[in-house]
Amino acid sequence: MPLIEIHLDAELYQAKSDQIGQAIHEAQIEVLDIPPVDRFQLFQPRRPGELRFDPTYGGVDRQSLVLIKIIMVARYPVKLKRALFEAIATRLEPVGIRHQDLLICLSENHYEDWYAGS
Amino acid sequence: MPLIEIHLDAELYQAKSDQIGQAIHEAQIEVLDIPPVDRFQLFQPRRPGELRFDPTYGGVDRQSLVLIKIIMVARYPVKLKRALFEAIATRLEPVGIRHQDLLICLSENHYEDWYAGS
Amino acid sequence: MPLIEIHLDAELYQAKSDQIGQAIHEAQIEVLDIPPVDRFQLFQPRRPGELRFDPTYGGVDRQSLVLIKIIMVARYPVKLKRALFEAIATRLEPVGIRHQDLLICLSENHYEDWYAGS
Repeated sequence: MPLIEIHLDAELYQAKSDQIGQAIHEAQIEVLDIPPVDRFQLFQPRRPGELRFDPTYGGVDRQSLVLIKIIMVARYPVKLKRALFEAIATRLEPVGIRHQDLLICLSENHYEDWYAGS
Repeated sequence: MPLIEIHLDAELYQAKSDQIGQAIHEAQIEVLDIPPVDRFQLFQPRRPGELRFDPTYGGVDRQSLVLIKIIMVARYPVKLKRALFEAIATRLEPVGIRHQDLLICLSENHYEDWYAGS
Repeated sequence: MPLIEIHLDAELYQAKSDQIGQAIHEAQIEVLDIPPVDRFQLFQPRRPGELRFDPTYGGVDRQSLVLIKIIMVARYPVKLKRALFEAIATRLEPVGIRHQDLLICLSENHYEDWYAGS
């Protein structure tokens, strides 16, 4: 049950939310081997000015910002987390989102911290 | 100081936010024994398409999605967390929210991670 | 890469978001000694009724609520966290935000939980 929260400009949301959601979901399936039905995504379209960032932090040429917050169970080694981030970045490039414009922030909890209707 | 964030369809928010907020708050008081004045709730009404999910994950007949994110101090045993989720689900049913349509995601922090104006 | 999420009344956001963002950022620079370019802030303007709270919890005379959620790497001692909260509260007072109306909630993760475009 990774929960994916995507904050992005409203224009980008309008134009490409399906492709963005699909790209992130495929990255999860590929790297974490989660079942395709394990999809919980929350899109948060943002108006100009709501996402504020420095265009140079980390020596990166940042032009825009797409913020992806992930909450998932603490069970994956560092290597897999990095692979997940890379896979998300790689799959979002053809959608038109530069990897320089991505900020991914992962938080972990435990199995007992979820309730999914059962 | 549990912080409760409720993402739900804007229509449902318009119609029933008071009852929903009250039901969740009563579940907390009952199970966690928090004082009734310890209430911090953030409603996030969502437009169609912003909450995306699979209707079958976990073998559940999911028709809609109400996402409740909880941040609270790590002090409750697993048994109490489960009791909290059950109490929330039970109290939301009479409000018209099926337990199959609930996703609850809990994150924990520590006492020193809060500032509440004092 | 602290990530700062600020939930506040839409009117307050319209009138003072620049000052609020700057005040919080300066508090971080001062207390955590982060580089000035390390700025990632997400403003979430809220409509009346979306932020619900008790005006008395903690013996505080709460009239409004500004919720600041912080996610950052677990590397700062409790003393520095408290100093950060105090610095934020102190710097927001001249902007017109009473410290009694602040709720700050910090969550921690690790270096490997971030991807910032590189």
